[in-house]
Amino acid sequence: METPAVLIDMTIVERNIARAQSLFDEIGVRFRPHIKTHKTPRLALMQIEAGACGITCQKIDEAEVMVDAGVDDVLITYNILGQEKLDRLVKLAKRCKLAVTADNSETIEGLSAAFTSAGLDLAVLVECDTGAGRCGVQTAQGALELAKQIGSAPGLTFHGLMTYPHMSDMKAVDSWLGSAKSVLEENGIGCATVSSGGTPNLSRSHETVTATEHRAGTYIYNDRSLVEAGLCGVDDCALTVQATVISRPTATRAVIDAGSKSLTSDLIGLTGYGLIRGAPAAKITGLSEEHGVVDLSDCDWRPNIGDRISIIPNHACPVSNLVDEVYWQKPDGTILTVPVAARGCSQ
Amino acid sequence: METPAVLIDMTIVERNIARAQSLFDEIGVRFRPHIKTHKTPRLALMQIEAGACGITCQKIDEAEVMVDAGVDDVLITYNILGQEKLDRLVKLAKRCKLAVTADNSETIEGLSAAFTSAGLDLAVLVECDTGAGRCGVQTAQGALELAKQIGSAPGLTFHGLMTYPHMSDMKAVDSWLGSAKSVLEENGIGCATVSSGGTPNLSRSHETVTATEHRAGTYIYNDRSLVEAGLCGVDDCALTVQATVISRPTATRAVIDAGSKSLTSDLIGLTGYGLIRGAPAAKITGLSEEHGVVDLSDCDWRPNIGDRISIIPNHACPVSNLVDEVYWQKPDGTILTVPVAARGCSQ
Repeated sequence: METPAVLIDMTIVERNIARAQSLFDEIGVRFRPHIKTHKTPRLALMQIEAGACGITCQKIDEAEVMVDAGVDDVLITYNILGQEKLDRLVKLAKRCKLAVTADNSETIEGLSAAFTSAGLDLAVLVECDTGAGRCGVQTAQGALELAKQIGSAPGLTFHGLMTYPHMSDMKAVDSWLGSAKSVLEENGIGCATVSSGGTPNLSRSHETVTATEHRAGTYIYNDRSLVEAGLCGVDDCALTVQATVISRPTATRAVIDAGSKSLTSDLIGLTGYGLIRGAPAAKITGLSEEHGVVDLSDCDWRPNIGDRISIIPNHACPVSNLVDEVYWQKPDGTILTVPVAARGCSQ
Repeated sequence: METPAVLIDMTIVERNIARAQSLFDEIGVRFRPHIKTHKTPRLALMQIEAGACGITCQKIDEAEVMVDAGVDDVLITYNILGQEKLDRLVKLAKRCKLAVTADNSETIEGLSAAFTSAGLDLAVLVECDTGAGRCGVQTAQGALELAKQIGSAPGLTFHGLMTYPHMSDMKAVDSWLGSAKSVLEENGIGCATVSSGGTPNLSRSHETVTATEHRAGTYIYNDRSLVEAGLCGVDDCALTVQATVISRPTATRAVIDAGSKSLTSDLIGLTGYGLIRGAPAAKITGLSEEHGVVDLSDCDWRPNIGDRISIIPNHACPVSNLVDEVYWQKPDGTILTVPVAARGCSQ
């Protein structure tokens, strides 16, 4: 294995999958892992084998790759717009159990036209902005209006509510969803599914009462952002970037062959671009595309040129999106090269 | 063309190539474009056709892709370490005029062993840290010691000095290189090449007297970082990310289908994640992988769901590294799909 390279410790992956699934099994919430973290069909099938009800994708081409590999239940949490994408969505719906989300009338109209014309029926959830400030209707009344529109639109079935939650206030998220669900029920509209998500919220899922389904991606690998938040340990991190020390220009500076093309520029609130295993006080202070600059001022570690190091990235998901292949270290120690089949799928 | 997608305006590309080449032709400095920005063999060949003396690559696999396409003069500005990479470097040296850089003894020893054993000779430049704080020897004396080592190492020829310069103080860079060159000459060692670089420094290249060669990448596309620095205009930016407005959750919020998987998280000192053409006061305040959140508070622009927009990214180079293909808009208006053949090459 030459560096830089992405190594996946499959012993940790198997443990992470089992632990999360048993958590949701215990509280009776369906678990629908988000494949954005691994983009690898074999891992999606392992998640389903362990008990997941299906998978979550963000884009149609990600879902196409997963269905090609045998996944048969997909939720695409995205507003699908435009004739080409709608045509592909119809084709996909013929090959698996499919649901999508919408937070606006234009999306619902497009879905309805495409599925009516194909003689098919599509399950649609209404996306709710419960505080994260991304997509989603802003009020329970907004959710009601779209639920009604979906319910009366030919080719569509209203399937429930979905949110990408604000991670730091799950009670507010639960309260938002609970109120919206009540407003819908007062209007005679049932919610088959209330889908929440997020890895940071995973261990607090039992605190919520409204969600019937949880989506999470990062938990399968974990990353430095979760370690720093106290939500997992270093030994729960399955994905590492393997790098080599290529320069030691000064006593306190090392340069490694992993830059933003390997680690990404994602800081997501942290300082530095990753955690070097075995040298937590070494700071990756700067990245250019092929270089990482490491400040050794605060540690005793003095690596030699040619030394291999192992880095837990700040955010695992975009790292998977940079490489065509990853290396699996299997429990028996063997190394397997595995394609990241849904890498670069954004459409 | 579905969104998100990367569109290249070839009229602007042709103008950017011609403008930079004529600048270096005028001052008699060789120009060696860095292919990291486009990673596309056809553009490398256009740069050479326009007068470039060859190309710069950071990694061997990038160079392999370029040589496969017909490029015959390559400088790899990187410490090459490890037997596998050295074996590949030897193979590459048989197919083109090749030079590399080194800033340490270990790298020089490895290169010497590999090229001696292959019965070949490799040109090696000493990398100098002239203020950028990345790789490079720290002093003229350090450069002299490595130049001597290269000069006496079988299989290697000392070829000169190279720096990745500190962009904001070209006079200091020039002074550093001038002193080092003098120290070498005092010791009877001539510098065939003194290679500097950078797009931000491009228009000030005539101010330096020591460099005989300049390397630059971003100039071929330009990007928001150069617009904000006053170094080019919006109409000089050839690469744009094409996106669609997929949600309008509030009066002042739009969400687009380009996130960090299209625009990257690179801020490189800027605020916001790109410049929306035609709406410069709209701020892309947040990215997740497939969503960009746009704050419309400071502008009158109120896009509709389904509207297409065109975004100049903060940093063009890592955007090229995210996509397997880009779309060329040719001067006659036709659109061509072009593979980014060296995407993901990091080894």
